[in-house]
Amino acid sequence: MAEEIVELKGHLIDSLILPRVLDTIMSHGGCFEIQRIKVGARPEDPSFARILIAHKDRRHLEAILKAVMHHGAEPVEREEVRTAPAPRDGVFPERFYATTNLDTSIYLGGHWVPVQNPEMDSGILLSAGTRSSGSRRGPAARATARTIKMADVKKGHAIVVGDKGIRVVPIETQRAPRDFEFMISDVSTEKPKGVLIGNVARLMKEERAARRPILWVCGPAVIHSGAGPLLEKLIAAGFVQVLFAGNALAAHDIECALLGTSLGVSMREGVPTPMGHENHLRAINAMRRVGGIHQAVRQGVLRTGIMCACVRHGVDFVLAGSIRDDGPLPEVITNTVEAQRAMRRLSRKARLAIMVATLLHSVATGNMLPASTRVVSVDIQQAAVTKLVDRGSFQTIGIVTDVQPFFRELLLELGIG
Amino acid sequence: MAEEIVELKGHLIDSLILPRVLDTIMSHGGCFEIQRIKVGARPEDPSFARILIAHKDRRHLEAILKAVMHHGAEPVEREEVRTAPAPRDGVFPERFYATTNLDTSIYLGGHWVPVQNPEMDSGILLSAGTRSSGSRRGPAARATARTIKMADVKKGHAIVVGDKGIRVVPIETQRAPRDFEFMISDVSTEKPKGVLIGNVARLMKEERAARRPILWVCGPAVIHSGAGPLLEKLIAAGFVQVLFAGNALAAHDIECALLGTSLGVSMREGVPTPMGHENHLRAINAMRRVGGIHQAVRQGVLRTGIMCACVRHGVDFVLAGSIRDDGPLPEVITNTVEAQRAMRRLSRKARLAIMVATLLHSVATGNMLPASTRVVSVDIQQAAVTKLVDRGSFQTIGIVTDVQPFFRELLLELGIG
Amino acid sequence: MAEEIVELKGHLIDSLILPRVLDTIMSHGGCFEIQRIKVGARPEDPSFARILIAHKDRRHLEAILKAVMHHGAEPVEREEVRTAPAPRDGVFPERFYATTNLDTSIYLGGHWVPVQNPEMDSGILLSAGTRSSGSRRGPAARATARTIKMADVKKGHAIVVGDKGIRVVPIETQRAPRDFEFMISDVSTEKPKGVLIGNVARLMKEERAARRPILWVCGPAVIHSGAGPLLEKLIAAGFVQVLFAGNALAAHDIECALLGTSLGVSMREGVPTPMGHENHLRAINAMRRVGGIHQAVRQGVLRTGIMCACVRHGVDFVLAGSIRDDGPLPEVITNTVEAQRAMRRLSRKARLAIMVATLLHSVATGNMLPASTRVVSVDIQQAAVTKLVDRGSFQTIGIVTDVQPFFRELLLELGIG
Amino acid sequence: MAEEIVELKGHLIDSLILPRVLDTIMSHGGCFEIQRIKVGARPEDPSFARILIAHKDRRHLEAILKAVMHHGAEPVEREEVRTAPAPRDGVFPERFYATTNLDTSIYLGGHWVPVQNPEMDSGILLSAGTRSSGSRRGPAARATARTIKMADVKKGHAIVVGDKGIRVVPIETQRAPRDFEFMISDVSTEKPKGVLIGNVARLMKEERAARRPILWVCGPAVIHSGAGPLLEKLIAAGFVQVLFAGNALAAHDIECALLGTSLGVSMREGVPTPMGHENHLRAINAMRRVGGIHQAVRQGVLRTGIMCACVRHGVDFVLAGSIRDDGPLPEVITNTVEAQRAMRRLSRKARLAIMVATLLHSVATGNMLPASTRVVSVDIQQAAVTKLVDRGSFQTIGIVTDVQPFFRELLLELGIG
Repeated sequence: MAEEIVELKGHLIDSLILPRVLDTIMSHGGCFEIQRIKVGARPEDPSFARILIAHKDRRHLEAILKAVMHHGAEPVEREEVRTAPAPRDGVFPERFYATTNLDTSIYLGGHWVPVQNPEMDSGILLSAGTRSSGSRRGPAARATARTIKMADVKKGHAIVVGDKGIRVVPIETQRAPRDFEFMISDVSTEKPKGVLIGNVARLMKEERAARRPILWVCGPAVIHSGAGPLLEKLIAAGFVQVLFAGNALAAHDIECALLGTSLGVSMREGVPTPMGHENHLRAINAMRRVGGIHQAVRQGVLRTGIMCACVRHGVDFVLAGSIRDDGPLPEVITNTVEAQRAMRRLSRKARLAIMVATLLHSVATGNMLPASTRVVSVDIQQAAVTKLVDRGSFQTIGIVTDVQPFFRELLLELGIG
Repeated sequence: MAEEIVELKGHLIDSLILPRVLDTIMSHGGCFEIQRIKVGARPEDPSFARILIAHKDRRHLEAILKAVMHHGAEPVEREEVRTAPAPRDGVFPERFYATTNLDTSIYLGGHWVPVQNPEMDSGILLSAGTRSSGSRRGPAARATARTIKMADVKKGHAIVVGDKGIRVVPIETQRAPRDFEFMISDVSTEKPKGVLIGNVARLMKEERAARRPILWVCGPAVIHSGAGPLLEKLIAAGFVQVLFAGNALAAHDIECALLGTSLGVSMREGVPTPMGHENHLRAINAMRRVGGIHQAVRQGVLRTGIMCACVRHGVDFVLAGSIRDDGPLPEVITNTVEAQRAMRRLSRKARLAIMVATLLHSVATGNMLPASTRVVSVDIQQAAVTKLVDRGSFQTIGIVTDVQPFFRELLLELGIG
Repeated sequence: MAEEIVELKGHLIDSLILPRVLDTIMSHGGCFEIQRIKVGARPEDPSFARILIAHKDRRHLEAILKAVMHHGAEPVEREEVRTAPAPRDGVFPERFYATTNLDTSIYLGGHWVPVQNPEMDSGILLSAGTRSSGSRRGPAARATARTIKMADVKKGHAIVVGDKGIRVVPIETQRAPRDFEFMISDVSTEKPKGVLIGNVARLMKEERAARRPILWVCGPAVIHSGAGPLLEKLIAAGFVQVLFAGNALAAHDIECALLGTSLGVSMREGVPTPMGHENHLRAINAMRRVGGIHQAVRQGVLRTGIMCACVRHGVDFVLAGSIRDDGPLPEVITNTVEAQRAMRRLSRKARLAIMVATLLHSVATGNMLPASTRVVSVDIQQAAVTKLVDRGSFQTIGIVTDVQPFFRELLLELGIG
Repeated sequence: MAEEIVELKGHLIDSLILPRVLDTIMSHGGCFEIQRIKVGARPEDPSFARILIAHKDRRHLEAILKAVMHHGAEPVEREEVRTAPAPRDGVFPERFYATTNLDTSIYLGGHWVPVQNPEMDSGILLSAGTRSSGSRRGPAARATARTIKMADVKKGHAIVVGDKGIRVVPIETQRAPRDFEFMISDVSTEKPKGVLIGNVARLMKEERAARRPILWVCGPAVIHSGAGPLLEKLIAAGFVQVLFAGNALAAHDIECALLGTSLGVSMREGVPTPMGHENHLRAINAMRRVGGIHQAVRQGVLRTGIMCACVRHGVDFVLAGSIRDDGPLPEVITNTVEAQRAMRRLSRKARLAIMVATLLHSVATGNMLPASTRVVSVDIQQAAVTKLVDRGSFQTIGIVTDVQPFFRELLLELGIG
């Protein structure tokens, strides 16, 4: 019987940490003995538990230990983190440690070193000052660690392997703002939306007051549904610092600015215009002719719309390419790995991300964000919202509603309607 | 080879009548010869066609004739309509003619007699003054005809059988209001909704101006989503004359009026209240204690909400029972056949029906309405809207949007926001 | 500060009982002090906790106590249950206790008396042998208690009020069959369905071996999708003892048996037949003519199909009416309260219920079942499955898949394919 | 009043050509006069019509003419096609003609020259032998024309502008196989699927017999749902010549081949394995280590699965990149414009495309296919199927069903189950 002892601290019971740990052990075929437990008498008191975990198979025990580590369980016996050199560019060493989106530290030279830029499905890169491979006891005076994507690894990079010497801080269940938990517990269409949208407005005001960037991820339905002018107002009012979208959102926004239609449908009358389905091609061609959106704004070719507002108000935007694109617009990053890098760089500082009516870009962005960034996901399709909320941390608010009314209500709550 | 000659009149080509007739013939394995055709040169000119239809099987030919009759094709040789007596209560005679929801006439005593109350899936009852069975040449001086449901038939009733002597007026494709066709062509979430809702407001004003009743069919999501007070305003402003709903809508409306929650969720704060899931039971029990909604309003027990507004403003309502009901409320008609009768009676005069967030009641009501009644179907689920629009005539507007924003926008468009 | 002490026993932590209790207290604005806690060291050891609950408002404290009672928390100070007489037929007394679907007992004459027929949203009726109102100390030698629906209450019935002297046994999270928890955790379309369906087959075999009835709840898509003959095989093989459905399932089944179509679509060729949309009316009329399904089977008018198989194999069925019904068939119970009573009676003995492609009947049935009855919910719409699983106990397996393939795979797994 | 005369030939009425033309004129505010019409008496006889179209605004008339041209209406007065030189790389000249996916010809030097590779949302490039700009009367002895995408245009390319001298052959409504029209008419879940899938099998056999490639477009749900081994059988049996997918399908296929899971879920037991969510990263890393899928198959690292079968049986595949990708696999084309080019090249010869459980790749592929290529679209989400069918020609069959059962039934119909 292989065994290991772990310890847990924090709000073990009301934050579901202990139940989750026990559940993980048992569902993976292990067994446990609670050797010591001290439960805080009052809500604010922390608890403590010491648990022996056992499994007849050593390899399974390792998997269990790694899994419970993600719920905050820490082995009693600390070991130094291990690394191995990347065998070639773009390839992790065998047994590389795959990250979560939680705050993570590594035990190095007798200290816990925080891992920069928490992001899921990455490796951990140790920087200069450390001996790379297999060394148990490094000096590492100024060693630093950060997440790194597979595509960005260089041959010889010191990458963390195995799961020793790694500590993860689980997110405790949010309780204080009860409405928040309510929102996440059940993504339903049958909710009084005003309350939820009011909360989103409150979060936005906090971020703006703190001068932290707010990240928006939007799909073309924002334009089709007539919400473009409302998003423009948000940009002008300083509630949008970063915008992630695809070729389609920008193309239809410009189509609307130049020709008054979105996907050929007149935005004023709501009806298709003759041959209007060509309009987005003509809008894209016009941008390509002058060299891009920035040039079009400078030359006065493009005078309204979301993209124009982004240029004028200094909003950073990434237009990421996809195989559905027509054109595409000159600003579109057609290399998807490059587009991810651009998105990753711009998303780092945001503590609030609002995702509207786009599954592809929302999931891609969600994968990059640390668990501590709050995410608001808005879509008229319940399945789309559920998909994002399910992946996510406890920080995700899902709102199933129509796009254009969402923006209008949001503006009213922000007092700029 | 069995043959028959039919004639068509009207906007045969631009209203798709002729294409549909030819398609029907061929898809059922028949063949045709267009013996004469005169196509109107200008849009407003009517056309005429005379078509020989043939099929090697007499029974199939009969089926084809009946099918093309529903597109307006009329046999050249007129025959008197035939009837047979109902064999027992609640049973149609063999080969009874099953109606559509189109305007229909029967050929009786050498005249075309209109059938009252067009409704699909019914039989046609001939009233006194006619000989019932098999008689080709009746006097029928004051003969009348009306649709009748299977459950309402009495033994001996003269019911139309076969398909001779029946004429159906197809609805010509609506063209004039182009936006209308646009709406029906494609039930999509990605539309500028403002334009569609503006059209609904316009239709509502026309009906109110003409003093015709507007029929509403609503599901409980109207309450859950916080739209109850908005519907109350519509009632007060005279835009609701008839309301069809189930026990749930009324129970949650009353729960909201008495206890401030809908399905236990506080309407002010958007969060569940402790033990709130019992609240609808307590609301229903309170109504049963005083004898019903009307008594509760009279005694001052119930002072706000949709049901209260209905009582105060004289709105006719039908609460139809279902097997999901708790209680139910005293006003609920628990016998479904009786509920259908009550709905049928109240829906007859409406030329506009607005159905929001309820598939069961919407389909049930849609089945009762003649094709000439315009239907607006609103739901956040695209599939629900599609289902109603697919069944329906060309008169249905489908809007895929969130319930509460729909009401808010509608009130703004009506100037009572 | 109002206070009360409660005790908890069982698998408090791994079954989430304690976390839920603490969460309930805090989310309702109360606070707690854990006065004593003993956590079992090994998975099989029970735990114990004694918790002081406090709230500054007495009424809120009562609500919290009732809520935690549903998670198994029992007040330390036992009080006798109280009753009040029903004020009139069909009306509960004020402050009636509203039941859950969990096993419940009442404290009466110093003993815990189990409440028969656990069913949610009901009252509790005490039967003869007890003094009804306000009496703290009754003899109650042979007192019994059972759930009763609001509609079934008679004036003077002794109905439990308040929440003293009531004990609820929460369902502990199922762990043992791990796949089971997996299923419920995430109702997804992207699952290897074979494994789930294999589990359903295993449950069915167990029930048949134990000679317990299996309850099926089916919608008309079973017929439309061509699964009718597969369900017939299940009936013949003894895997169906009770069937709940509506008029539509039976009508289209009979349409298929008599005319070879379902909703007018040929089941052999998958294409609409000429005038086929009338066929269900003719099928219903044929049943009404002979007096009903049973007579039709006896007279040889109806020789195949699900309903025929039900009659021949003695399957109890309830066809519950709805306002969408045509006809309806003579066996349809058009009074919804009566239909509920018939369903309630037949569903009592089932420990396994399989619900396929019908939201209305599934929810209605789910509301009647005790939490201990396992429910399998199958639908191609994820939202429908989620809705049922969300309401339900931990006993619900949701499978998002197509109806006909579900039946085919199930038959293969049962070895009768 | 601006006027123009057009002519129409073919099955004007039963193929809906004439109705569509008249509807287009009127819905765009024009009016018409049918100057001559000859309707074929029998189904096989062609018809002819000569129609004067008028609009008070010249520009609107031009738009109407272009729109009716897409329904096959040809101006009586033929003019030579015009071109203009592309102003710079990747930019069309002003007023470029935007293509449909229909067979198109241009009138050049007194002859109709067919446009190669019909594809929507493209321009038309004229090749050597023609004078490029504004010339009405060119020699153009061996001039050729083909579609070209905006991104592929080079400065100076002769691109067709305006809409003179262009002829489009509309697709006539399919009638003969009636079931086909049935399928497209209504994308419903409630259909006997066996018949539809049988038709797909028949089409596949025809293509294989004719030695034409069959194009498959698949999403990762094929793997998650356990259909991978079934698709392998189709590959081995010669029913797959081209496969379009993304990084996810290949990664999970390889994860399954190497580690037995898909997205961490054991394919044998249907339950998540401990830390299994990392498995796809490890699978991708393993491929990157050896240099790619092809090398992995050659070296015996990869021995089963879809991708392995593709390599072994010479199936051409394109793995197109997206911003959701982890890794990605070495074979993934991360530049989306390059990926489109690769897909375009491989899709040209296919006359049958089968798209399963992927909206992004299906829409991207659908945009490239000529209207004459038949498309089968399979998804458990009705909305996804509808979206594809709506865009498409009359050649699209939509099947709403579960992925794995679709494959199993298909194999049975093909006799390789």
